[in-house]
Amino acid sequence: MWQAMREALDLLDPHTRLVARYHLGFADAHGRPVDEPGGKAVRASLALLSARAAGGPAEVGLPGAVAVELLHNSSLVHDDLLDRDPTRRHRPTVWTVWDETTAVLTGDALLGLAQEVVLPVSHGAAAGLLLAAATRALIRGQVNDIAFETRDVVPLAECLGMVADKTGALLSASAAIGAVLAGADRPLVDALRGYGAELGVAFQLIDDVLGVWGDPAVTGKPVFSDLASRKKSLVMCWTTGSGGTSARKVTEWLTAPPAADEDLAWIADLMERAGARDWALAAAAAHLAAAEESLSVVPIPDPARDALLTLARSLATRRS
Amino acid sequence: MWQAMREALDLLDPHTRLVARYHLGFADAHGRPVDEPGGKAVRASLALLSARAAGGPAEVGLPGAVAVELLHNSSLVHDDLLDRDPTRRHRPTVWTVWDETTAVLTGDALLGLAQEVVLPVSHGAAAGLLLAAATRALIRGQVNDIAFETRDVVPLAECLGMVADKTGALLSASAAIGAVLAGADRPLVDALRGYGAELGVAFQLIDDVLGVWGDPAVTGKPVFSDLASRKKSLVMCWTTGSGGTSARKVTEWLTAPPAADEDLAWIADLMERAGARDWALAAAAAHLAAAEESLSVVPIPDPARDALLTLARSLATRRS
Repeated sequence: MWQAMREALDLLDPHTRLVARYHLGFADAHGRPVDEPGGKAVRASLALLSARAAGGPAEVGLPGAVAVELLHNSSLVHDDLLDRDPTRRHRPTVWTVWDETTAVLTGDALLGLAQEVVLPVSHGAAAGLLLAAATRALIRGQVNDIAFETRDVVPLAECLGMVADKTGALLSASAAIGAVLAGADRPLVDALRGYGAELGVAFQLIDDVLGVWGDPAVTGKPVFSDLASRKKSLVMCWTTGSGGTSARKVTEWLTAPPAADEDLAWIADLMERAGARDWALAAAAAHLAAAEESLSVVPIPDPARDALLTLARSLATRRS
Repeated sequence: MWQAMREALDLLDPHTRLVARYHLGFADAHGRPVDEPGGKAVRASLALLSARAAGGPAEVGLPGAVAVELLHNSSLVHDDLLDRDPTRRHRPTVWTVWDETTAVLTGDALLGLAQEVVLPVSHGAAAGLLLAAATRALIRGQVNDIAFETRDVVPLAECLGMVADKTGALLSASAAIGAVLAGADRPLVDALRGYGAELGVAFQLIDDVLGVWGDPAVTGKPVFSDLASRKKSLVMCWTTGSGGTSARKVTEWLTAPPAADEDLAWIADLMERAGARDWALAAAAAHLAAAEESLSVVPIPDPARDALLTLARSLATRRS
């Protein structure tokens, strides 16, 4: 996959290629190769397994695997700029190493390149359409997530809708794109999309649990990062909508202006006592079960099914 | 075309749709419809004529027409942000009415939407590939144009390469996409691409002439705008490479730090005396002739050919 990704990047102009290679962890900011993993590549793994689920070789899914990673990384480069995040995967983000212009143009280039990778191959138009629809959903999720920032409390249903767009849509497209490229029929593609969508919610639930109660030494994120930013995460939206004394105290904190000496450990504790962590872990398990259920109604070769289920379980029970 | 464009925008989330409709001149910033033209839509016109050039009805080119305008406007929304331009078509730009985040996400959404418009139709993959390749060229042109800003002088050949990417690639794709959607054969598609590429250079030559010697009352741009920004336009790159006394004075001005009281009318006059304006007008005429020549080697129905030639001439001789 990484080799195919490198070849796709070779199409880009030298500057944009350098920046993209840096962002993906292939090279340092001067273009010197580095020995670093380029992230978990969950989406690429899903795309390759998706082709095998349709009875094809994993290679049929390869253009899809490269494309979903390109699309994902396009959104990361733009998000890092818009959120003014200084680091990603323990390295300075593109906009800090270069500038705003480079971040915007590199993200644009990766978005276009994703299409260039899938469109020339068989069933490319259907795969490209899957990517374009996922792009639109991803942006809708982003727009809603940003709108949440200016609201004190957000109903859980709205937050789940945002997560389905922002995280679920691309995982759903990743889980289906390999099968689409393999020419799979509609029921199989739909089952894989359903699996990916459910997996997306389970994935985000765990992400949100780690954002409040995760061990910074393991997650690599600052302690209580989601609380410090008052993020309307799934666990926060659940808490504020759950009633009870602990939940009310959390809502009061959330709706008051930030104090210099606020005790975020206390907020995390209140949320846990309100039951947010238990709810999130149970909900993640339920969405994982729904993902598995989605695959049960279609014929999938056993090794591919097993690999999809193993991947889903590892994501829905991860600790970092 | 505008009706089809409106329908495409309906796919977007409400916020992004509002912003896109504002940018395109369909509505004000509150979503109230306004009676304003949405720009010249040169690219859409080319795409529709392109379908007719292939013997199809203009409607076959309609998804292509919408897509090239979406792609063009995606880059305008991002460029306005990166250049911090306050106005476009006499209206405040998206990033000034909303913010940076909205400008980045709206541009991304329009880029994805362009693909969603063409991919479902017949020959959609080939059309989508044309758009994606044009996107990549457009970004390469942008990257080079920005790199020019930090250089004192740029050789004309490099500037022409940048223009071929930044302006020519999308006009070339626009001129070919309708024919691609109509299932035209390779020689016709290549001829139309060649026509669009030559037209792109002619178009930019006139743009650059207007940027130095244009009447602000007619162009809507500030007087001497390209000189004030020390833009490495085609006429500037020609001047600095042309030798002679006037050219040397312009180069001296360009390589010196900007003075508060600099006389831009004098620079424009020096460039004219060096021959930059005459060169640009002759070069535009030559590229226009090359565009016409490109169409002469393939069979094209007379009404479509005449319309393509008329459009090219109007763009290559325009005064605003």
